[in-house]
Amino acid sequence: LEAGRQEELTATLLATHPAEVANLLESLPPEQRSELWDVVPVAQESEVLSFLHDEARTTIVDEMDEGELVAAAESMAPEDLAEFIDELPEDLTNALLISMDADHRKRLDSVLTFEEASAGRLMSTDVISVRKDVSIAVVLRWLRRHESLPPHTDSLMVIDDEGLYLGKLDVADVLTSNPETEVEAIMQPEAATVRDNLSEHDVAALFERRDLISVAVLDSAGKLLGRITIDDIVDVIREESDRALLRSAGLNDEEDMFAPVLPSARRRGVWLGINLITVFIAAWVIGRFEEALEQIVALAVLLPIVASMGGIAGSQTLTLTIRALALNQIANANVRWLLTKEVLVGAVNGMVWAVVVALVTYLWFGNIGIALIIGIALILNLLAAALSGIVIPLLLNRWGIDPALSGAVILTTVTDVIGFLSFLGLATLFLI
Amino acid sequence: LEAGRQEELTATLLATHPAEVANLLESLPPEQRSELWDVVPVAQESEVLSFLHDEARTTIVDEMDEGELVAAAESMAPEDLAEFIDELPEDLTNALLISMDADHRKRLDSVLTFEEASAGRLMSTDVISVRKDVSIAVVLRWLRRHESLPPHTDSLMVIDDEGLYLGKLDVADVLTSNPETEVEAIMQPEAATVRDNLSEHDVAALFERRDLISVAVLDSAGKLLGRITIDDIVDVIREESDRALLRSAGLNDEEDMFAPVLPSARRRGVWLGINLITVFIAAWVIGRFEEALEQIVALAVLLPIVASMGGIAGSQTLTLTIRALALNQIANANVRWLLTKEVLVGAVNGMVWAVVVALVTYLWFGNIGIALIIGIALILNLLAAALSGIVIPLLLNRWGIDPALSGAVILTTVTDVIGFLSFLGLATLFLI
Repeated sequence: LEAGRQEELTATLLATHPAEVANLLESLPPEQRSELWDVVPVAQESEVLSFLHDEARTTIVDEMDEGELVAAAESMAPEDLAEFIDELPEDLTNALLISMDADHRKRLDSVLTFEEASAGRLMSTDVISVRKDVSIAVVLRWLRRHESLPPHTDSLMVIDDEGLYLGKLDVADVLTSNPETEVEAIMQPEAATVRDNLSEHDVAALFERRDLISVAVLDSAGKLLGRITIDDIVDVIREESDRALLRSAGLNDEEDMFAPVLPSARRRGVWLGINLITVFIAAWVIGRFEEALEQIVALAVLLPIVASMGGIAGSQTLTLTIRALALNQIANANVRWLLTKEVLVGAVNGMVWAVVVALVTYLWFGNIGIALIIGIALILNLLAAALSGIVIPLLLNRWGIDPALSGAVILTTVTDVIGFLSFLGLATLFLI
Repeated sequence: LEAGRQEELTATLLATHPAEVANLLESLPPEQRSELWDVVPVAQESEVLSFLHDEARTTIVDEMDEGELVAAAESMAPEDLAEFIDELPEDLTNALLISMDADHRKRLDSVLTFEEASAGRLMSTDVISVRKDVSIAVVLRWLRRHESLPPHTDSLMVIDDEGLYLGKLDVADVLTSNPETEVEAIMQPEAATVRDNLSEHDVAALFERRDLISVAVLDSAGKLLGRITIDDIVDVIREESDRALLRSAGLNDEEDMFAPVLPSARRRGVWLGINLITVFIAAWVIGRFEEALEQIVALAVLLPIVASMGGIAGSQTLTLTIRALALNQIANANVRWLLTKEVLVGAVNGMVWAVVVALVTYLWFGNIGIALIIGIALILNLLAAALSGIVIPLLLNRWGIDPALSGAVILTTVTDVIGFLSFLGLATLFLI
């Protein structure tokens, strides 16, 4: 790139898959990113754009002029364009809509009528449909009149005169059946379908459970609207796991590693601010015990141990609970069983590590009272951690708050407070 | 289940997809799990077993008698059976191998020659291959002689007399081409293929980038061995994200929410023990400053604030770095840029929150010295957090250690130690 051999680079890029070009762009700092974008062949631009993550895409779109944008937008599939246009500033969106041809705009409008992250948004309308009363020979002739089939066509959709969905016809069955067979005889009326308003999360779960390649999307009347294919589902699954990971650290879903300093600092600062509030609560609890701390300085030294062990044990239970919630494995019937189990696990580990911590404390400070009290506080905190690790995500989930986002912050506040309270409280009661 | 209406339940289970039965089993405590397993129809057992996670599967296999196990094993696909057999105790494995018929055992042996988590293990040998010099009409006739095609057959493999792979022939092209066309004219010799020893992670990355449904697996000589299909890749992607999430909390990959108390406690206890060592290091650092703590008790109250803010900021950077490493977005060329950026983000947030913390501290304790010192310590710790958040995962990665597993523990140890050192050290220097 630095040598400036642009033509050679353009040729290399053309031979590279657009998804790989997008990944390369995302691993470059802003300046080099825009230099590389300048050499991306125009023909490849729209595909590369559709592979970029939202935030990285925004940095690139900001540098494109309107003509370039319109050209790229026009060669995008309507479902990719819909996602893309959601992220643009409003004046650019309007400019784009105006300069688009009528047919393209109409297709875009129809995608935009569906809610974000719904099956309607994911689907493509590029479907091959057949009637149930024709023979396979007719289907074969009809397919041969196509230049090519839509990508990932593993089945054709069987519909009636009104466009109502009747079932699917596997391409494999078309190939292995006798040409005289009627479609109706080999179509699968019981095949899985989804409603247009189903969430993409639920669509992905269906694909995973049933090992699907594509699924028909129907409206409330049972009319065929389009189909969703596995490649889009793989993206949904990847994005969901990405989101869970980033959110657990209080990061934005679409965080761009190479975003400028100030926006990054602002976004991450929010989470630091929330954490600051919770840690001031914990500090306030410690402050209630100034007298004990003044008299026994060892308490201050040992404070982080009780809190930290509670935090780790709690986040183990929390992580398992969040995962079980995502897999729909938690229901009223098994919550009590789970609570009992986790509390028992907390009790076992609490007792084991309480002995170790008490022993080390005794050897360090030579004070049997402090050793006993830190052991008891540790057990109490691990029990509280187990309870919180289940109860907090279940409550957040019931209230419609994503436990992956805020669960850990609330949990560590609870384990900090209970750890400090039990350790310093017991010390105040028995040692002073 | 409790009403004991077994026949009704068996009928319901038969109508349910095996993956859903597996999920249901995993959401039950041990006792009910084995009750439900008893009603799972024998015909469904092998499929349900192949959908279960390792640990849940072990609890169920433990209860099956040998005859039942052999029956289930015999109706499994060899690649599923290979994964299954890896988890069995050795004596059961031997019993299974002996009672299996020769053909089945041979197929299993050939799968087991490949390393775990390699393309060879993922692939199925159920492939339809054709010659390049025949016409599409011949291909169609040949396909029609099949009862059905292997699942997810989106393309046929073109091979020569020696079994060497020449290219793929899309089923879509078979359907849309003129029957007189020769295979050679429409096959894709440049299609993506993978070597048998490629890791499943890399295979999944290829599927994602190229939107593949299936890919040919070749040996070192270029001979066609089998093919990998997208449904297995979806499982790989899901397992990888699951693993990343569980590991970040120090949990076992295959943790079963309903595992018995003692094994769960033991597995999680390991992580608590590792954490205990690191938190004792932090406590030891605090212990070096007993004098300062004795004289100014406010220091003990404020200690958690500096440490906690460093831990949060550091884990944000750490999470982004681990993710960028997984996406292959970090190379020598951009590390310096990233370091500069993260340190600047740390500096900005350090200064902003230092002012807030200093102000609250001053209002709380009315001591300008402590307020200034906690502010400076916070800035220093956020800078250290930014550096550690990049350097620690990069070093772990270079040494071949998964940064998702141990990165967070090492990072918080660093931010705890630096936070305590800078806060208590500055206080000792200037306030005492």
